[in-house]
Amino acid sequence: MTSVTSPSYSITIRAHIENRIGMFAKIATAIAKAGGDLGAVDIIRVEKGKIIRDITVNAASEKHMKEIVESIKKIKGVKVLSAEDRTFLVHKKGKIEVRNKIPVRNKDDLSMVYTPGVARICLDIHNRREDIYRYTIKGNSVAIVTDGSRVLGLGDLGPEAAMPVMEGKAVIFKQFGGIDAFPLALKTRDTEEIILTVRNISPAFGAINLEDISAPRCFEIESRLREELDIPVFHDDQHGTAIAISAALINVSRLLGRSMKEFKIVIVGAGAAGTATALMLSDYGVEDVIVCDRAGIIYEGRKRHMTSHKKVIAEKTNPRGVRGSIRGAMKGANIFIGLAGPNIITRDDLKVMAEDRVVFALANPVPEIPPEDAFPLVRILATGRSDYPNQINNMLAFPGIFRGLLDVRAKGVNKEVYFAAAEAIAYTISDDELNEEYIVPSVFNKKVVNSVSQAVSKVAVETGLT
Amino acid sequence: MTSVTSPSYSITIRAHIENRIGMFAKIATAIAKAGGDLGAVDIIRVEKGKIIRDITVNAASEKHMKEIVESIKKIKGVKVLSAEDRTFLVHKKGKIEVRNKIPVRNKDDLSMVYTPGVARICLDIHNRREDIYRYTIKGNSVAIVTDGSRVLGLGDLGPEAAMPVMEGKAVIFKQFGGIDAFPLALKTRDTEEIILTVRNISPAFGAINLEDISAPRCFEIESRLREELDIPVFHDDQHGTAIAISAALINVSRLLGRSMKEFKIVIVGAGAAGTATALMLSDYGVEDVIVCDRAGIIYEGRKRHMTSHKKVIAEKTNPRGVRGSIRGAMKGANIFIGLAGPNIITRDDLKVMAEDRVVFALANPVPEIPPEDAFPLVRILATGRSDYPNQINNMLAFPGIFRGLLDVRAKGVNKEVYFAAAEAIAYTISDDELNEEYIVPSVFNKKVVNSVSQAVSKVAVETGLT
Repeated sequence: MTSVTSPSYSITIRAHIENRIGMFAKIATAIAKAGGDLGAVDIIRVEKGKIIRDITVNAASEKHMKEIVESIKKIKGVKVLSAEDRTFLVHKKGKIEVRNKIPVRNKDDLSMVYTPGVARICLDIHNRREDIYRYTIKGNSVAIVTDGSRVLGLGDLGPEAAMPVMEGKAVIFKQFGGIDAFPLALKTRDTEEIILTVRNISPAFGAINLEDISAPRCFEIESRLREELDIPVFHDDQHGTAIAISAALINVSRLLGRSMKEFKIVIVGAGAAGTATALMLSDYGVEDVIVCDRAGIIYEGRKRHMTSHKKVIAEKTNPRGVRGSIRGAMKGANIFIGLAGPNIITRDDLKVMAEDRVVFALANPVPEIPPEDAFPLVRILATGRSDYPNQINNMLAFPGIFRGLLDVRAKGVNKEVYFAAAEAIAYTISDDELNEEYIVPSVFNKKVVNSVSQAVSKVAVETGLT
Repeated sequence: MTSVTSPSYSITIRAHIENRIGMFAKIATAIAKAGGDLGAVDIIRVEKGKIIRDITVNAASEKHMKEIVESIKKIKGVKVLSAEDRTFLVHKKGKIEVRNKIPVRNKDDLSMVYTPGVARICLDIHNRREDIYRYTIKGNSVAIVTDGSRVLGLGDLGPEAAMPVMEGKAVIFKQFGGIDAFPLALKTRDTEEIILTVRNISPAFGAINLEDISAPRCFEIESRLREELDIPVFHDDQHGTAIAISAALINVSRLLGRSMKEFKIVIVGAGAAGTATALMLSDYGVEDVIVCDRAGIIYEGRKRHMTSHKKVIAEKTNPRGVRGSIRGAMKGANIFIGLAGPNIITRDDLKVMAEDRVVFALANPVPEIPPEDAFPLVRILATGRSDYPNQINNMLAFPGIFRGLLDVRAKGVNKEVYFAAAEAIAYTISDDELNEEYIVPSVFNKKVVNSVSQAVSKVAVETGLT
């Protein structure tokens, strides 16, 4: 268990405190001794000889939260009135709502918004199908579709338990892209049923975002839906990740002054993200990409643990036909990209890489190698975490990509869009700004969404997606 | 074509007018001569010798709107700058949006709303399934599901053209019930596919509202979904209408001082609404209900135009075994309920009814008999229109019913809920207030939703739906 405190384990403690000098210092000391990280402190009210405060503390775990509360309870003159888990509070009753854009104050309003006036709009769309973009939510709405089979790094939790992530995604869609996204968590694992369900609900949506669907089903679901639907279908775990990684690699190439195509790249993990990244880099013209899974290096002709998408990987990567373990793949490599799980490589693995080592250890929250182990050996380190420099996060990609596709009513999405998005992300960092600890912009950098959406809109039009 | 003006055909004309005395009178006169109904007038700005005004006019049709604009254009000294169709304007880009309940201002917020904090909520729901009601939108969210096969009275327009109605419904859900409803317009007509799709999307919703699905498929879809799902499934065209009609009949019975069970009732129309109303009245204990369809009276043993739901109607109604035409059914009847279409009965049909005739001519916008024809012959007239007294509208029912079911996390819905809702609607009108022109409350009467939702919650708990 990591002992790093985090706002994701934060509590707000409401305490009744005797109003004497030194009391707050006692509380602060108790929190520090218990390993907590003191945050905001508010006065709620002052009573005769008492003060009621809200004290926010970051802890490292649920157990740690309880320990901190206990340590405060022990202080003489302090009574803990409540201790609220702030993360649970944020999610209470859900994080999104449906709001009306127009009020219905009286019968006149009602007769325009609903019957009889609404019939005129229905007939208009019936006669001119494309008017659905003008008079309904379709032009700005995205369905976030999951079956809950691979929720974050937690695995198969089912559709109900996936909902908090899907709602969080909807929050990000709105806040960063101005997009109305609605989560649909499906009670089925069957590929055909998922395809059928998404096709059936598609008329009212301008795009489909597939999310947290496990490999290899995610590949077939996406490709079949792309064939069948006339709106973009984008599996964010695949392409959002691949695009964010490609953006980071573009900036590595700018920083090192070398063409990206020359890099020898090792990817560990052949799930949704690893596969999409390998194929995107191959499409980009990077020749020497090697992908490893649990069974080691993927090569043409391998017999064990092969699936149809791994056969595609084998065809498109590993031109030297290398076989064997991760260590073998890393010999002489320039770039390591981890999309697998915690602590699967060591310092010794890094040592066999070529000079100017670049390591993207993206497993979250625990990377493929502890950052502290990697730092002394690498020139550039990136993770999926927000508490180290160079956070590679698909939030950099998807809000701008969907915004750009919706803005031009794109009927699909293609590789050119991915590359345009990756370049747009990369070049929000100027040559002057670029350095080893700044190869990807912050997700809160407002330039990113605009720059990505404009690039995506342009390329979507140019490549005939509209 | 009716020549009644309506806000559903209203235009806002922006005009550049010479600033002389008498100019506005000329415009008002031109509008009146063209048959328009002058509404709000605003000054936008005053320039040298000119005034720019927005003039809102209700018209009777799209053609009429154009005629009115033309008549204004002809006035010397007036230049029409624009003429906007207000109904289309209201629907522009859709009527609802998804909004975030919490902001994401920085990495700390993000780490609670999204990763890594959100993982804690996912695991909690994975371990305690019922917590989905505490930490997601499920407890307040309704899916409005249609296939667009019977949109309003317009018929089969398809899912795209149905969307403005579904969004309008979502607006009403929010404004009147505080409910987050999201429209799903399905690209399929297949009963099995609709059932499968709704079942698959059900985990994130607290209830399902089926809408504008044609009979007889709507009956099987609803009953099968009720068996399969652990949330309420409610086809509003059936039960919303039946409940609103029952509420009106309860008040007719109060007003006439007669038990509802004694009424002889004729229903014309054996679609979703007619069927549900007949069965609800039968369940309520009304013995003498006769239902007519295009082929005349429905009776046990009838061979023509029978379907499985009409067989149920035949079993549960028409105890005297009457056969023949609508006229025959109406002989001696107390109540006529029209759920069919425009102008299908005449004054002569009404004349054969018993004294104190009660006529609910609910086809919209053109009733089963013109109100002006019916008035001299009836004691009580109700329509589906907002421009006559006694508008019977399922908006009286569904917001409160869903609110009440969601509030107690009901796992289904039953007849007791329907009756409770009907009574709650009826009794928002006190004995003192009740009269021939006031048998149903206004949809804008705020007491209705509270009263219905409380009654529904109570009955749902009592009858074991929670």
